[in-house]
Amino acid sequence: MKENTLAQFGIIGLGVMGSNIALNVENKGFSVSVYNYTEDLTNIFMNKYSEKNFIFTSSLQEFVNSLEKPRKILLMIKAGKPTDDTIDRLIPFLDKDDIVIDGGNTNFKDTIKRNNKLKNSKINFIGMGVSGGEYGALHGPSLMPGGPKNAVDNIMPILKKIAAKAKDNVPCVSYIGPNGAGHYVKMIHNGIEYGDEELICESFNILQHINGLNTKDIANIFSSWNQGELNSYLIEITAQILTKHDDLGDSKTPIVDVILDKANNKGTGKWSSENALDIEAPQSVITESVFARYISMLKDDRIKASKLISKEKQQKVQLKEKESFIESLRKALFFSKIISYAQGFNQMQTASQKYDWHLNLGQLAQIWRSGCIIRAQFLQKITDAFNKDKDLNNLLFDDYFLQITKNYNQAVRDIIIFAIQNEIPVPAFSAAISYYDSFKSEKLPANLLQAQRDLFGAHTFERTDRPGHFHYQWGNND
Amino acid sequence: MKENTLAQFGIIGLGVMGSNIALNVENKGFSVSVYNYTEDLTNIFMNKYSEKNFIFTSSLQEFVNSLEKPRKILLMIKAGKPTDDTIDRLIPFLDKDDIVIDGGNTNFKDTIKRNNKLKNSKINFIGMGVSGGEYGALHGPSLMPGGPKNAVDNIMPILKKIAAKAKDNVPCVSYIGPNGAGHYVKMIHNGIEYGDEELICESFNILQHINGLNTKDIANIFSSWNQGELNSYLIEITAQILTKHDDLGDSKTPIVDVILDKANNKGTGKWSSENALDIEAPQSVITESVFARYISMLKDDRIKASKLISKEKQQKVQLKEKESFIESLRKALFFSKIISYAQGFNQMQTASQKYDWHLNLGQLAQIWRSGCIIRAQFLQKITDAFNKDKDLNNLLFDDYFLQITKNYNQAVRDIIIFAIQNEIPVPAFSAAISYYDSFKSEKLPANLLQAQRDLFGAHTFERTDRPGHFHYQWGNND
Repeated sequence: MKENTLAQFGIIGLGVMGSNIALNVENKGFSVSVYNYTEDLTNIFMNKYSEKNFIFTSSLQEFVNSLEKPRKILLMIKAGKPTDDTIDRLIPFLDKDDIVIDGGNTNFKDTIKRNNKLKNSKINFIGMGVSGGEYGALHGPSLMPGGPKNAVDNIMPILKKIAAKAKDNVPCVSYIGPNGAGHYVKMIHNGIEYGDEELICESFNILQHINGLNTKDIANIFSSWNQGELNSYLIEITAQILTKHDDLGDSKTPIVDVILDKANNKGTGKWSSENALDIEAPQSVITESVFARYISMLKDDRIKASKLISKEKQQKVQLKEKESFIESLRKALFFSKIISYAQGFNQMQTASQKYDWHLNLGQLAQIWRSGCIIRAQFLQKITDAFNKDKDLNNLLFDDYFLQITKNYNQAVRDIIIFAIQNEIPVPAFSAAISYYDSFKSEKLPANLLQAQRDLFGAHTFERTDRPGHFHYQWGNND
Repeated sequence: MKENTLAQFGIIGLGVMGSNIALNVENKGFSVSVYNYTEDLTNIFMNKYSEKNFIFTSSLQEFVNSLEKPRKILLMIKAGKPTDDTIDRLIPFLDKDDIVIDGGNTNFKDTIKRNNKLKNSKINFIGMGVSGGEYGALHGPSLMPGGPKNAVDNIMPILKKIAAKAKDNVPCVSYIGPNGAGHYVKMIHNGIEYGDEELICESFNILQHINGLNTKDIANIFSSWNQGELNSYLIEITAQILTKHDDLGDSKTPIVDVILDKANNKGTGKWSSENALDIEAPQSVITESVFARYISMLKDDRIKASKLISKEKQQKVQLKEKESFIESLRKALFFSKIISYAQGFNQMQTASQKYDWHLNLGQLAQIWRSGCIIRAQFLQKITDAFNKDKDLNNLLFDDYFLQITKNYNQAVRDIIIFAIQNEIPVPAFSAAISYYDSFKSEKLPANLLQAQRDLFGAHTFERTDRPGHFHYQWGNND
């Protein structure tokens, strides 16, 4: 680009995500200045894209000086200490009203801390969730910026251009809320993603146990599901994965058959569960999905246990009504997905009150319709539900979700019963029906639990017929 | 007590727990000096027990000066800031080798922090889990001291005298490990307690749905269960609770029927789940129990939902073979309890390695046999298992637990299927069978999950047939 021209946007960190977002921003017609802590990545990037509208800088000061004011600087670096260090080194070079955006996978608690720390400084600090992986970063991610509203407004024109667009052409970005709100909802997004993935895996596992269904047949089932209510990116790629064959061994073997069944994780799923526990929001489907990954990692123990405890039923299950069973499974998957989202959105509403964020949950569902990993048609239904009632505190109270779950709950019961009889683990499906049955129970056995707590710890209880807290003379305590 | 005589033991904090432990220590023949931050509690205590071997003090300095050296000071005060404040005020008065014991419900992370902070000071800091409620505090609690070994050895003679005794007369106290180990295992104890309570409540709920069983009948069922494998304090008090009648309203109504079904919690259960998530130990039964309490708190939502989603089956269930069903339920409860303990003990073993604590899990099970809330004969079986194999990393690999779960797993399947068909929530039972079926699965569908992660995030995967990390060209990512 021309000498002495200042860039409109700056990016620190040229890993895969940072490079792709830089290209995305530049593609949309903005000039972009880039900087990386080590020069190797900058050189690679410079050699590849020397013709494009980039300024390549080799020091933080040079980088800062290359930006027009107020500067808009996106950090795409490792969460934690590297982010703190970079912010500390960056601040002395900045001027009043400059904007620093942390686009990393940062824990929202750290974002709140940084926001508090920088509140009285001259600069604006934004914590922004970025979802969509490398592909999304380049072609359009879902963006969840949180922080000072006026600063987010300032960068919004750029964000709208680089964000994914839903089918109605609405960009997948909106102002989320103050301080840690952006990284918080990204964390919940990832938790929901864990739930979706686990529910798909449990469905896949069940289908694998049916006599007469091979991997190609199962791919076709997911492919047909993707045409209906379940239409979503994760269902789509599942169908796609199941058609792929081994690239290193026998090319007739489905690739999925040679992939080791140990599911890693990068922590954001567990953060969402830890937060649910912390703010007392029941969020069992995601949490069981996190635990399912942990159990998958215990491969050696599982092999040992499988030898000690052989299955009663070794054979694949012969089904008379295969078509209707598959339809029940489809309903069970959709039912459980709805419960998982009901829990996730309820958790966000609880958090919104606790942290005083005033989250707009309908708008949030809207910006997840494209770009991010959980993108799905279905999210429009959530937006519609919150448009009808912005204070909706559980999706199950919305008529669409209420009717679906009413109509489909027998299917999930049938599927779980089938799985339990055939020793197929279904932790997330089970968590979904348990939540549903608990949530619609006017009376739960927690009265007995309160009695126990009062007996051994004098914790007192409330009564059904009069207000106040009561302690009963159980007559055993001395 | 005599003028100018120094007390052998000191207690700060004269709430219910502190007072009862003070009385317990004095009853065992030790002289005890007591202090409370506000004088009101000291005065009440002084008036009640002026004849006993106590020194009543009205300032921290007076309290410290009343103790023989090395001083042994037990804090029984509110966890968190009050504990920090008291320690800060106390330290200037102390001498080298004095011992400060935090007996509160402290988060083990705080205990680790305090241990680190005080490591280079003159005093010894012990974090001690105390279980057994007010009754246990007075008559014999289960004690879990962690910190410098020599300091714990120093107070062990007193702890052994005040601790509960198991049937074989072994005191329920042993050295747990360094820094936060004592408070950690107390936290797991409480998590396990949550699991036991929830499993009992789910059993109670199922029994309430059987035609022809009233509360008295259910009391008798728990009472008979208490004679066998399930013999434990919590089963015993459940039977007892169910025989008690309303003390304020109709004296013919079981008290449990007028207790509101909202289960409170004091946080230690959720801590154990948060830690499980953090250290990647699958601990689903306890976690579902924590979430069950949270759902119970949503009483208004539950009433609303119960009206929107009426049950298909309103009637109580008519059973032909009531006796055999009840026996299946007993087996299901014992099976699920074993799974919950297998998860809890596995979590402690994971923690022991992560935090370098060298926990003696067999000895730990032994000191829970009496005094604490989860006390049970069954714990001896866990001690036996670790005596056979001190590195046992899952109880299911011990022959006793392996055989029981093998023999009983059909019963838990039958009970869950019954519950799901009858819309009775069984989150903890379901979590138990899901864990069992996952744990004994040589192959889980996590291979599909790894494929998904590699497709959208290039996270790579391992293969079943060769070492290394692989990325597949899915052919869609640009």
